Amino acid sequence: MIKANDPFLKSWVDVPAGSDFPIQNLPFGIFKTRYLSPVAGVAIGDYVLDLVYLHENGYLDGIGLPPGIFNQKYLNDFLAMGRKKAREVRDRVSELLRIDNDELSGNPAREIALIPMREVQMQMPIRVPNYTDFYSSEEHATNVGSMFRDPKNALLPNWKHLPVGYHGRASSIVVSGTPIHRPKGQIKLPDAEQPVFSASKKMDFELEVAFITCSETKLGQSVSTADAENYIFGFVLFNDWSARDIQQWEYVPLGPFLGKNFGSTISPWIVTLDALEPFRTDGPVQVPEVLPYLKFIGSKNFDVKLDVLLQPETGEPVTISQSNFKHMYWNVNQQLAHHTINGCNIQVGDMYASGTISGPSPGSYGSILELAWNGTKPLKLPNGTERKFIEDGDTVILKGYCEKDGVRIGFGECKGKILPAI
Amino acid sequence: MIKANDPFLKSWVDVPAGSDFPIQNLPFGIFKTRYLSPVAGVAIGDYVLDLVYLHENGYLDGIGLPPGIFNQKYLNDFLAMGRKKAREVRDRVSELLRIDNDELSGNPAREIALIPMREVQMQMPIRVPNYTDFYSSEEHATNVGSMFRDPKNALLPNWKHLPVGYHGRASSIVVSGTPIHRPKGQIKLPDAEQPVFSASKKMDFELEVAFITCSETKLGQSVSTADAENYIFGFVLFNDWSARDIQQWEYVPLGPFLGKNFGSTISPWIVTLDALEPFRTDGPVQVPEVLPYLKFIGSKNFDVKLDVLLQPETGEPVTISQSNFKHMYWNVNQQLAHHTINGCNIQVGDMYASGTISGPSPGSYGSILELAWNGTKPLKLPNGTERKFIEDGDTVILKGYCEKDGVRIGFGECKGKILPAI
Repeated sequence: MIKANDPFLKSWVDVPAGSDFPIQNLPFGIFKTRYLSPVAGVAIGDYVLDLVYLHENGYLDGIGLPPGIFNQKYLNDFLAMGRKKAREVRDRVSELLRIDNDELSGNPAREIALIPMREVQMQMPIRVPNYTDFYSSEEHATNVGSMFRDPKNALLPNWKHLPVGYHGRASSIVVSGTPIHRPKGQIKLPDAEQPVFSASKKMDFELEVAFITCSETKLGQSVSTADAENYIFGFVLFNDWSARDIQQWEYVPLGPFLGKNFGSTISPWIVTLDALEPFRTDGPVQVPEVLPYLKFIGSKNFDVKLDVLLQPETGEPVTISQSNFKHMYWNVNQQLAHHTINGCNIQVGDMYASGTISGPSPGSYGSILELAWNGTKPLKLPNGTERKFIEDGDTVILKGYCEKDGVRIGFGECKGKILPAI
Repeated sequence: MIKANDPFLKSWVDVPAGSDFPIQNLPFGIFKTRYLSPVAGVAIGDYVLDLVYLHENGYLDGIGLPPGIFNQKYLNDFLAMGRKKAREVRDRVSELLRIDNDELSGNPAREIALIPMREVQMQMPIRVPNYTDFYSSEEHATNVGSMFRDPKNALLPNWKHLPVGYHGRASSIVVSGTPIHRPKGQIKLPDAEQPVFSASKKMDFELEVAFITCSETKLGQSVSTADAENYIFGFVLFNDWSARDIQQWEYVPLGPFLGKNFGSTISPWIVTLDALEPFRTDGPVQVPEVLPYLKFIGSKNFDVKLDVLLQPETGEPVTISQSNFKHMYWNVNQQLAHHTINGCNIQVGDMYASGTISGPSPGSYGSILELAWNGTKPLKLPNGTERKFIEDGDTVILKGYCEKDGVRIGFGECKGKILPAI
């Protein structure tokens, strides 16, 4: 077991019960306070630990980090040092935060290093050079196929042979808390002959988890399923906002475009693959047998509970879906192996999202398209209103966490509010 | 008229007849010599003019360029200064190169500033944050639709209402001269029940022209067709290599992915929109009428002659297609207006490719898929061999140029050789 994951570890920083950020997690992010430029930090309880302070004051000596590595707008340069280096930093931070360690806790300046989360603004943790979205939940693909194509042949012929994916827009990935304007575009109303220009009437979220890469490959190289985890730094929650009516009119034959690229929201803290190690689990059995390059050994899924909450403009957040990352038919090792089998090169900071994660039951669907079955079964909210799709003023909040042996490894929130079209 | 475009201008640098780079062109690129790091330059005849030399020696004083702006690996920071600033640099370089100007020509050190093209290695001119590929040639869309769907309904219902596009992979865009390995992946042979793992047997090129942006927008903003040209710095030739068999098995429902993202090749010199001004022409009449946000005033197509040459491993290059950028049904102003109508933000250095540019006659098709009609009408080469698709060892060369009043504004070559699968 990785020492930093030991469920018996306790920190001298007070970690409230139910916190996403105990000493066993220690995710990395970029934060800004009112007076500072963006810098790197680690979450612990209700605090952010300033990595620049630790680095500049000798607490990370011996790891061999270059000057200024944490004093940057993005974590890309840190990620590029690789998983091993990140593990050394996480291990050392874990050591410094342990209840029996007084190196930092005994320093009166520790309050400079530990900043209350309510005083920081989280930023995009990485510059995203490339973004790919997969389509790896069998339940989601089946639901969508049933609704729009044929319930008897809901999955297309290629779906069980390869992890279907497509390229998304990197520029419009934003950090949790950034509002998104309802997109405008062409939609074709039922029975209309011609498209009209309109704000989307079918605004949706998609519950996803994305992994972020920390090593690059050269054009022409492939990454095997066995080697894939050396390229994966960690994970964030991902809301792939979708305008279903724009998407439906545009997407044949070249795929989703303006129905998606007006915005995607991520949670700000990158939970490391190391922190998720204790939560590995087997994925669904894959039948038919996959081609050799997609075979893998070991447990490659992760048991991450996922909640979707919807908060109307006036009212409290209400849980509208409960799913789990473990439902993915195709795992991240297979996704990366497939993506590179043709020689496509990966870069540091690339974002690879899972696709909507729907579970087997109607309460576990990962989009309102599925939850309200394309508007035919509206969701009833406690405030007496209904939802066929997302309305202006609605905030969608994704949450994710693993739990075992009394330890909860959480992702924090991935939150976004839909504003009216401009 | 922009003074630098004056057809009567002559340079003291010898420009051979038929050169793509007379004094009226002056495209920007990034080059490396044997001993130097990559820096910015301008093409003139058979020479590259070193912009770092000009800048550091006071030849560009008064334009207000920050130190080191040309001493960089990519042109992105220069592009970000906007079209007006780039025009000032191009105007000044034009002045310095005129036959009646001795500021630089009279300086014995001019040989330091002018480097023979044969001694430089051209580099990727920009870091590409986002890459979009359109599908804007009616002839290409019709040919593909006829081949794979229904000749009577070759164009899908959305095609004449919006410029169909999709996101491509930015990481695998490479500069002319970079070899590409034939991709491997899943293909489904005719009449087979299951896919097999194989090197692609249907390797293709796509003749395209791409524009590059020099200004960013904020998420939520749109760019009108009238304003679009303020965002467009210039153009390059673009070869969107395609593995048709991989693409055909994977692309429904989310679009092309591994069939495309193993590599795209661009020409190294960015020909400015300013240099192309004299070559504006009207595009095809658009029927049915487009929605208001896609309407435009003026001539928005460009008369750029395009050639495709194929050079077998042993043998001379042979022209296999002659097309023209003017055939585009959707122009670049409409492409950018459509791309941003939903609020999708653009960034500096983004690449927006046209989609395959096929003309009306079989000799003007922009892919071998169309030229050899999916392998049913093989191309006969002078060396006695045939081509249904691209073979290992084949080099594909795209060329492009405008010609008028004795002035030829060219793009140079966009060249790539297909190596065997690894």
